[in-house]
This record gives sequence, structure tokens and C-alpha cells, in this order.
Amino acid sequence: MHEDAFFAELFPRLGAMPEDVVVPPGDDCAAIRVAPGRLLLLAVDQIVGGRHYFLEGPRAAAPERVGRKLLARNLSDIAAMGGTPRFALVGAGMSPRHGPEWMQRFFAGIIETGRRFGVVMIGGDLAGTPADAIASLTIVGEVGEKEICRRSGARPGDRIYATGVFGASLETEWHLDFVPSCREGRWLARTGAVHAMIDVSDGLLLDLGRLCRASNVRAVLEPRRIPLRTPHIDWRRAAAEGEDYELLFAVAAEAAAEIECTWPFPETPLHALGECIAPDAPGVPQNAVLGPDGRPLLPETDGPVGYDHFRKSPP
Amino acid sequence: MHEDAFFAELFPRLGAMPEDVVVPPGDDCAAIRVAPGRLLLLAVDQIVGGRHYFLEGPRAAAPERVGRKLLARNLSDIAAMGGTPRFALVGAGMSPRHGPEWMQRFFAGIIETGRRFGVVMIGGDLAGTPADAIASLTIVGEVGEKEICRRSGARPGDRIYATGVFGASLETEWHLDFVPSCREGRWLARTGAVHAMIDVSDGLLLDLGRLCRASNVRAVLEPRRIPLRTPHIDWRRAAAEGEDYELLFAVAAEAAAEIECTWPFPETPLHALGECIAPDAPGVPQNAVLGPDGRPLLPETDGPVGYDHFRKSPP
Repeated sequence: MHEDAFFAELFPRLGAMPEDVVVPPGDDCAAIRVAPGRLLLLAVDQIVGGRHYFLEGPRAAAPERVGRKLLARNLSDIAAMGGTPRFALVGAGMSPRHGPEWMQRFFAGIIETGRRFGVVMIGGDLAGTPADAIASLTIVGEVGEKEICRRSGARPGDRIYATGVFGASLETEWHLDFVPSCREGRWLARTGAVHAMIDVSDGLLLDLGRLCRASNVRAVLEPRRIPLRTPHIDWRRAAAEGEDYELLFAVAAEAAAEIECTWPFPETPLHALGECIAPDAPGVPQNAVLGPDGRPLLPETDGPVGYDHFRKSPP
Repeated sequence: MHEDAFFAELFPRLGAMPEDVVVPPGDDCAAIRVAPGRLLLLAVDQIVGGRHYFLEGPRAAAPERVGRKLLARNLSDIAAMGGTPRFALVGAGMSPRHGPEWMQRFFAGIIETGRRFGVVMIGGDLAGTPADAIASLTIVGEVGEKEICRRSGARPGDRIYATGVFGASLETEWHLDFVPSCREGRWLARTGAVHAMIDVSDGLLLDLGRLCRASNVRAVLEPRRIPLRTPHIDWRRAAAEGEDYELLFAVAAEAAAEIECTWPFPETPLHALGECIAPDAPGVPQNAVLGPDGRPLLPETDGPVGYDHFRKSPP
């Protein structure tokens, strides 16, 4: 069962949300109004040994890098809402293979990465687990209510952009060492021109499909425009593998030129990939991402595409 | 390695806390000031199959009860700060033995229990785990800055009280079915007379020792006053086993009579257990809890006492 399908079944059972829940679950973060115009962003993410990093062998990850990755994944969720990360709470399961020394180094990776992004750890829980190494991190961030970027605001005619390059994340170890796009996300949010934004963690096509479904639009993507991390992969791999942790966003067509001209991050590539079009029919389209020939780039079924942590382990 | 010792080593590495962190990690919850006089409470806790509940056999817990317990443990942490719980974020690891159906029922237990306490789930993550069943929950609550109860405010002369009864939590299944003392905690916080409060999750003696260390006091406890859940256990077991999820608090001596007389929860026993005395020497006393004969009820070492989830599995 796909994680999206699991939560799609679960979320309707949550009932009505309180008035101060401005963004309910289903986006990169939930958002709570804590003062007029001021939102708190919250999200939880997990990291599992043998799934999100190698436990042993020549590519076994140092515990500091595992902690770093767990926090960075969550920072990317805050970035996608245009927010500023502030606090982290960490629950960790300590298996017999991951003793106190491994754990101290794992937490040190979180603390050190947090320091670079202005995030402090304000809570932790440590439990013994019989076999597995698993940890969860809840991130808390802040954003102005006028600045927040959701998945759901894209409109027909919007231009679709992405930061960075795609694919080959596992083999290049980008998945461990990526720098979450917090500055880029904040800058984009403050332009006021971004209608929708999402972070690409599960594959460009899968996450673009999520943005389209949330916004009730379709997207036309030009595959040759997808920037590749290494020359030996093709666009299909780059768009499906995931673990890119880049920002994907939709901007009003009339604002696109200004975004490109004033983009203040020379070290971060910015690429126009395509545009949003109206759905053919009312309701949520199943295959929201089309190629230039009008044929779906996503398969006909609603099954998993891209790097789905719920099914696939690193090779 | 004891969880307290692990975090005692880790927390100093966190560095200076931002100004809006009113209660840093180390209490039942951390507290963040989100508006003048208004604090947000945050804490994370985990539940591990085979440690916090039986996975199989005649006492295997239904998944709904496991979800209920995970949330209720976190609610107890909010109660101990005098707060009102509001939101939950859940990370769950789905093992081959805990498929989608188990997981849906587990989340249903969280959602249903949340409804009874005014808590909504605003975030979730589901990951596949190779072997273990483990889940974490981050709770978010609210409390007024003038009302918040910490572990650290007890003073010599304060009377020590506890709600409820103690011991035999595993065999009576109290550890699955307890009702967290949110109403009691809020009422106590609003009296303004509670100097320090903690929830008893790891054993009465262990948690009273934590309150004493945080407050730099010692406690004199009359063991015969510890109320027992069942007649066939003695006070040593009742004070050490843990999983009671009761409130333990220190009140000014002059306010004790009024607390007892106006206590508005006839279904919740309230017992005076002893009092706080000055430490013999400056600094944190190693053996903070004494019997009426002046001898320590806690062992001389600083090692684990009580129900330590980090070492012990349910029998």
C-alpha cells in the first residue's frame, strides 16, 4: 500500500479541523495560526536504516550523516512552505547494532546541522528497539500568513520551475549531503508570485503530480528541460528516482521573467520546466503530468512512481 | 546506558537556547512563547512493540489500544505542565507483521482518543521497517505563562501530593487504559499553588527524584502512604514499577489544606505522601528521596530505578 493512499484513507477520519489550523495535513507541513498573521509550521519525517541509508558495507553512512539527513529532509519541508525552521524534536530507536556511541554521534549530526540552519533541538526520546534502527523528527518552523506557499494554489497558465538538478542522488550521495533550500524557499515566498510549491523528495514526476492534484490543474512538462545531475542518466531516471530535495513551484506567467532576472542564488540553478494547464474535466485528474505531445508522463494507474520510501530500499 | 544519562550528556551540547524557549528540554515538555503570556508545549514520546505492549500471545494488545496508549502517554506530559493538548504528529514504522490494516486501526486509536481530549492529528509519516513495530508521537499543547508548572520550582517545606494509585500497571492493563490527568493538571496549574509537577511514568521514586533534582531539594516520603492499586503488592513495587501516569506535585504548605478541600475530582484520589526538605549541601543531591528514618529510599548509585523503558520489557 502506497503511503499517499494510506493517508488519503486516514485523513477524512480526522474530522473537522479547529479554526487555527490554516493548513491541514496533506501538504509538506501543517500550519497553525499562533498570532494574527503568524503561522507555525509542523511536519514529521522518519529515517530507517537499510532504507534511507546503508547500515553496513563500504557505503555505510556515518551516524552524523544519518542525523544530518533526517534533519535536512525536514528542513526541505519547511523550505517548501516558504518558512524559517526553528525547532526539532527527535524520537530515536536504539537497536543492539546502534549503541549509545552511535546514537550520540547521530544526535551530534542533528545538532550541528541545526546550528547551521538556526534550529535547536527542544525535545528527545530514546527507546530500545529489538532489531531496527529508526528515528523520527518533528520540525517546527515559522512563516507569515501572507507568505506561506501551499501545494494547492497553482493555476492554469502558471510557469513551472525547479531549483537544482535531478537524479542519481543515491550513487552521488546527494541524498546524504544535500543542502536544503531554506533560503531559496523564503526568497520565493516573499516575492508573492509563487502560487504553489512542493519539495521534490519522491521524484519530480510524483511530486509534480501531487502539486497538480492539490491545485486541480494539469502540467505539461518538457522532459529535455529536466536538468540532470550526471551526464550518464536520462530524464526518465532523473524524474523518477527521488531524494533530490529540490523546490518545485508554479509562478504566474507575468512574474516569471522577474523571478528569473532577480534570482539571487548564483550557486542554485533555476530551470523552467513547463506550465500548468486546465484539467480536462472537473475533479482531480489521475494523470496530471503530460509530455509536449499531450501524452501522460505518469503511468495510467495511481500506483507508486518515483522513489517511494515505503516500498523501495536503496540498491 | 540510562536514557536520563544519555540526554544529560547530550543537552549541554545544544548550546544557548533562543529567547522564546521558556522551558528548555529536560522537563516533561519544552515550552515556546508564541505570543505575550502564551506558551506552546511540545514533547515527543515513542512506543515499541514487545517493550511497551505485547505483540503476541494472550495479552497481545489490539492496535487501537496501542495507538491510544501512545497518545495518552503524551497527554500525560502535557497534563504535568498544566497545559491543554491540541495537536499530534505521528511517525510510524510498519513492519511485515504490522500491515496496512493493523496500521489503520492503530491510527484510529490515536484519532478516537484525540477526539475525547480535543486533540487533532495534523501530521503523519509512514515508513517500512524490516522487523520492528515502533511509532513516535509529538504532542503540541498550550498553557498560560503564569500557569505553567515545571519540575524545578519545589521548595523546602512544600507538601508532596500524588493523584491516583500506584503499581501493578502491567498486570491490570492500566498501562493501556489509563486516563491521562489533563483536567486535574489544568485545575492544579490554575490554583497558582503548585510549585512543581511531574508525571509518574517511570516509577514514583524515580520521578520524584527527578523533580527533587530539578528543584534542588530532597523529599521525605512516608512509604505507608503510597496508595496501592491492588492489595497484593507492597509499596516498594508500587513505587518502582512505573507506567502509572499519575501526577506528582509539590504545593506550598499553607495552600495544602485548600487544595485538599476544594479538589473537584471525586473519582481521582489525592494523597499527601510527604514533604520537601533542604538539600544537605549545595548542588543536586544524589539521593533525593528519604524515608521517615532519614535513610535514602533510592539506591546510592545514580543508576536506573523504576520502570525504565530503555532497559526493561514488560514481563
